[in-house]
Amino acid sequence: MEKLLCGVDLGGTKLASVLMRRNGEILQEINLRDHTDKSADQISEMIAGMIRRMLREESITAEALEGIGVVFPGHVRWKDGVCITTSNLADAFKNYPLRKKVRDNFPSVPVYLDNDANAQALAEMTYGAGRGYSDLIFMTISTGIGAGIILNGKLLRGMTGTAGEVGHAIINPASPRKCTCGNYGCLMTEACAMFLPDIAIEFLRSGVQTKMGITVQNARERVNGYTLEEGVKSGDPLCTAVADHSADAVGISVYNLFQTFNPPLVILGGGLTLIGDYYIRRIRNKFKFLAKDMMFDEMEITTAKTGNKAGVIGAAALPLE
Amino acid sequence: MEKLLCGVDLGGTKLASVLMRRNGEILQEINLRDHTDKSADQISEMIAGMIRRMLREESITAEALEGIGVVFPGHVRWKDGVCITTSNLADAFKNYPLRKKVRDNFPSVPVYLDNDANAQALAEMTYGAGRGYSDLIFMTISTGIGAGIILNGKLLRGMTGTAGEVGHAIINPASPRKCTCGNYGCLMTEACAMFLPDIAIEFLRSGVQTKMGITVQNARERVNGYTLEEGVKSGDPLCTAVADHSADAVGISVYNLFQTFNPPLVILGGGLTLIGDYYIRRIRNKFKFLAKDMMFDEMEITTAKTGNKAGVIGAAALPLE
Repeated sequence: MEKLLCGVDLGGTKLASVLMRRNGEILQEINLRDHTDKSADQISEMIAGMIRRMLREESITAEALEGIGVVFPGHVRWKDGVCITTSNLADAFKNYPLRKKVRDNFPSVPVYLDNDANAQALAEMTYGAGRGYSDLIFMTISTGIGAGIILNGKLLRGMTGTAGEVGHAIINPASPRKCTCGNYGCLMTEACAMFLPDIAIEFLRSGVQTKMGITVQNARERVNGYTLEEGVKSGDPLCTAVADHSADAVGISVYNLFQTFNPPLVILGGGLTLIGDYYIRRIRNKFKFLAKDMMFDEMEITTAKTGNKAGVIGAAALPLE
Repeated sequence: MEKLLCGVDLGGTKLASVLMRRNGEILQEINLRDHTDKSADQISEMIAGMIRRMLREESITAEALEGIGVVFPGHVRWKDGVCITTSNLADAFKNYPLRKKVRDNFPSVPVYLDNDANAQALAEMTYGAGRGYSDLIFMTISTGIGAGIILNGKLLRGMTGTAGEVGHAIINPASPRKCTCGNYGCLMTEACAMFLPDIAIEFLRSGVQTKMGITVQNARERVNGYTLEEGVKSGDPLCTAVADHSADAVGISVYNLFQTFNPPLVILGGGLTLIGDYYIRRIRNKFKFLAKDMMFDEMEITTAKTGNKAGVIGAAALPLE
């Protein structure tokens, strides 16, 4: 009998889990949101509880699982299965052996721990826009920015397990914005949702107009992916300027990844891609403008297809890698 | 009997070839400089002639070769063994099937074609500073800048074979300098020897002093790696400023590669590393300043050890990859 896959996505707001077939068919699914104030050990127990509940619902035991994949929203020490740091969960997860904690509950099952962008890349390769590719780069443009890089069907993890952190690659040292990492002008400060309000405030101060009621005072509440989607559609100058700034930065980064990896496919995911066609087209155009005659085989830029379940589906797919 | 390796490095000024053992011991070596005005077909014949001469000197036939590796100073279509473009040799090499041309002369021997940075990376892994590593990034900082990226003991080539062109990755979009690629602010315009005179002229115009007799008028002849080496040693303000500008840009690029690949080792090679310890230390410091607390396992930055024979030794090592 085909063994089943089990994935857990431990996020800053949601704790999601699925039990699914190898073909991606989801048999059981649990989403919780009451984990954020819990300790790391308590969350480990919640994870074990979710998995047991899904197994019970399917009337199967842990032996029916190919493996359990757990996704963590931060740096992971891949070989050891240890969480290193995260800006999305309590400090309790610093150097926390999450893989061991989960395995202690299911000693007969292989357990994998990886970060969210890696899992999403795997989800896209296995079930999404990257089907049929063994080389691709998935970039998530969301609150922050990260990438999962797949070469020869395998995730590029690097020495520690922190490869793919392209959001912190510096593309504009002259930027006035300082990232949470402490540097100025990494891709994050130019493009991710966390910095859109700062970018909008600078445009407002330089005289860019808006009909969306956005002011220097309310920008932090008002400027986000939804506002930009609406504003870009109605041709609002401020929203368009902010979306352009973000898209151009992503375009530069995609171009840099092209020169570095020469990959056949780049998949863009994350909340900001929902700004829509205008945003994606601007990224593609910036890339093409920079690549000029240096691209000898067409590199495709497309959007993710596994949606908001990418993380948990990718977690489940980790044993298949 | 152990088969021998044969490498050819087709450069813009030198056509070099070696016959060597697997351990790197060079048995025969020929260097020519009269190839630059020849046609692509004539150069192919020169290459075949050099190889035949080395075989004759060793009293062996082509059957004694493990393979022939040829290195081309430009873009290569890896799978097809075809030169795509180069800015270092005549246009005749555009889409030129160099691998086939060499193989036609030695039908019994596998022939490989790759670019110079890739070959140098392989030379460093096999015989140089990367011995014992299966993952490393080699960056050559010379007239231009390129990289050879080795993952799991294999060169990362990408879809076409143009991976590793990190010299064209954009790190400073506000740069006033336009690269030969047509873009502003790629690593090349901030760091490579081709742009050092432009950088020096800007510093001179902004009032930076020099005791080296460098002026806006003579900068194109006077500013190069040798001048900088001398100027940095004597504390010349202009030379130090130019070396700092280049080193800081390389430091940013090394940091970006760290975030992207999380490699254990970065090896710096090429003429500008001869500026000396000051230059290398500045690159390391810039990297460390940017990496802050984001490096969980120490990444080593070191200098190349195979020297000016890196290309031809790496060419010879291509069959071992």
